[in-house]
Amino acid sequence: MSMMDEVLENRLIGRIAKSFQPPPHRLNRIHEADAEIIDLGEGSDTYLAVTTDALAEEVSSGLYDDPHLIGWMLATANFSDLAAVGADPVGLLITVTYSSRQDEAFIGRLAEGISDACRELKTFVLGGDTNEGKELHLSGCAIGLVPKDRTMSRIGARPGDRLYLSGPAGLGNVFAFLRLTGSGLQLPGMSYRPAARVAEGRLIRRLAGCAMDTSDGVIHTVDTLMRLNQCRFILNDTWENTVHPVALEVCRSQGLPPWLTLAGVHGEFELCFTLDPQREKELLEQAAAAGWVPRLIGEVAEGDGVFIKTAEGIIPLDSGHIRNLSAQAGSDQKGYINQLLDYARKFGR
Amino acid sequence: MSMMDEVLENRLIGRIAKSFQPPPHRLNRIHEADAEIIDLGEGSDTYLAVTTDALAEEVSSGLYDDPHLIGWMLATANFSDLAAVGADPVGLLITVTYSSRQDEAFIGRLAEGISDACRELKTFVLGGDTNEGKELHLSGCAIGLVPKDRTMSRIGARPGDRLYLSGPAGLGNVFAFLRLTGSGLQLPGMSYRPAARVAEGRLIRRLAGCAMDTSDGVIHTVDTLMRLNQCRFILNDTWENTVHPVALEVCRSQGLPPWLTLAGVHGEFELCFTLDPQREKELLEQAAAAGWVPRLIGEVAEGDGVFIKTAEGIIPLDSGHIRNLSAQAGSDQKGYINQLLDYARKFGR
Repeated sequence: MSMMDEVLENRLIGRIAKSFQPPPHRLNRIHEADAEIIDLGEGSDTYLAVTTDALAEEVSSGLYDDPHLIGWMLATANFSDLAAVGADPVGLLITVTYSSRQDEAFIGRLAEGISDACRELKTFVLGGDTNEGKELHLSGCAIGLVPKDRTMSRIGARPGDRLYLSGPAGLGNVFAFLRLTGSGLQLPGMSYRPAARVAEGRLIRRLAGCAMDTSDGVIHTVDTLMRLNQCRFILNDTWENTVHPVALEVCRSQGLPPWLTLAGVHGEFELCFTLDPQREKELLEQAAAAGWVPRLIGEVAEGDGVFIKTAEGIIPLDSGHIRNLSAQAGSDQKGYINQLLDYARKFGR
Repeated sequence: MSMMDEVLENRLIGRIAKSFQPPPHRLNRIHEADAEIIDLGEGSDTYLAVTTDALAEEVSSGLYDDPHLIGWMLATANFSDLAAVGADPVGLLITVTYSSRQDEAFIGRLAEGISDACRELKTFVLGGDTNEGKELHLSGCAIGLVPKDRTMSRIGARPGDRLYLSGPAGLGNVFAFLRLTGSGLQLPGMSYRPAARVAEGRLIRRLAGCAMDTSDGVIHTVDTLMRLNQCRFILNDTWENTVHPVALEVCRSQGLPPWLTLAGVHGEFELCFTLDPQREKELLEQAAAAGWVPRLIGEVAEGDGVFIKTAEGIIPLDSGHIRNLSAQAGSDQKGYINQLLDYARKFGR
């Protein structure tokens, strides 16, 4: 079993994918990039970047019930995968399967959510397909272009690299915690509309070693990068820097350890990327010129595993176990949260 | 209300689409092509063709229950839309949402169905997304390229044109009739695996006036072309030429009028296209060289509406009514078939 196959979700993907012949014009192998990078041949001076993402559990579990948020997240999840390979969006295709429980007003607001997310990124819905079915179900397919000499994938981390996030994380898991535990609480002082980091992806595509979005949570992302690159990933415990202030506020009020906001599978859409220290000055200068502040959250070292660096030393985190809790819990979201909290207690912080 | 909006399904699509800004780089307007034609700019010497199609009702109604057929139809439906704009496939993206009712063997056979359909067309699955949900749900997104001087769309029929099909039609509706009426009968002597007409689309893209696939049935397709091109479409009643011999055999054994195999919404994936008579010789020569026999099924004239040309004269067919029967019936497939048969009796043939 490969290191990637220790994660249950990857085993299912692998089982489906083994029926498919690897496309000779696809630059990445399976799991190796957030979006597929396709060589269109000599007639094109860019690669095509394509990705597809469906919203199923997030809707059926009630995590997203506001139609505007559902539409927004559909577009954002897809464009975020383009951002992680440094692609410039060409547009989005959508399929909407609605049931008799969604009225015209609901479908209209959902379309506005998709449209607003596209407008924010200066891109477009190219087309779509509508169907009637038993359950609301949505899928998207985002298409982009990336210069042939500037592609970025999940591969390319090296020991000695710095580990960065495009912005503070943790809001996705805190939003899910508040929604799914039935607390009735909202995120204090904000509505949850995370943005795909397309501009940041474009800026780092010449500089980063590897990149991946945090759509399934930061720990999930770092665990994947660790397995693919066969390096050790060490996170700093400076949570005020890594975790969004609103997420930290909820942690304080709910008595949750801050790193748990990175451990759940409900991510946001920051980019997690590695950087050769020799390129750090150039990145920070370009970021500053663009009004963007990347967050240094850790480092890459020889070895394997995910660790947390604290004042007391470097502590190993069983990130494979944390990821598998979600797959094993299935639709039992409350059970999943309790198991995460159990692990946090054993982990002792 | 526009002529397109007289059809209920189009009104819903229009309502969703009005939230979306028309993409400046999309060559077609909504409804005007089976796949979206996107200008990638001067860096590319081809247009991108993209389309998305979900399988929802076909699975939840039980029309498709064999996992290999489900996978095959997902790929075929998407590539057929590429064929109708004359595009060369680059590949397919898929989303698979499975429930606890699908086991690993089912998912494996489904993947094989997708893979077999791709292999038949010498193309590939580029990537995908898997999710767990309450119902089995599939969507696909096919991507292709089309030379800039050879695009084809649903627009371009002119009075005087000949009306062609890439091959005999009617198998889709006969398959659905046998499955959904619970007769337990199979298509005699064959298993149902319609193919996307990619090679034929490539051949006609320089020659055809307009083209559209018959995925929702021939009458639906002809009705759409009639509304978009504002011409009269006249079908010949030489059903031995237009309707597949196996479909004719089922019609005889079940006492159904042959034209009804063109009227239901369960189409196959032939291309329906118009042709300037001056280009007929060239088309037929090229088709013969490729071992392909296009079927002449009618003609285009001044006026509007869909008609059937019989020995007794030219009879109008209320194709808008026929199309709306499906939307009004919703998931009541038996009621839908009975209403189609009612119309056939009123229509007197």
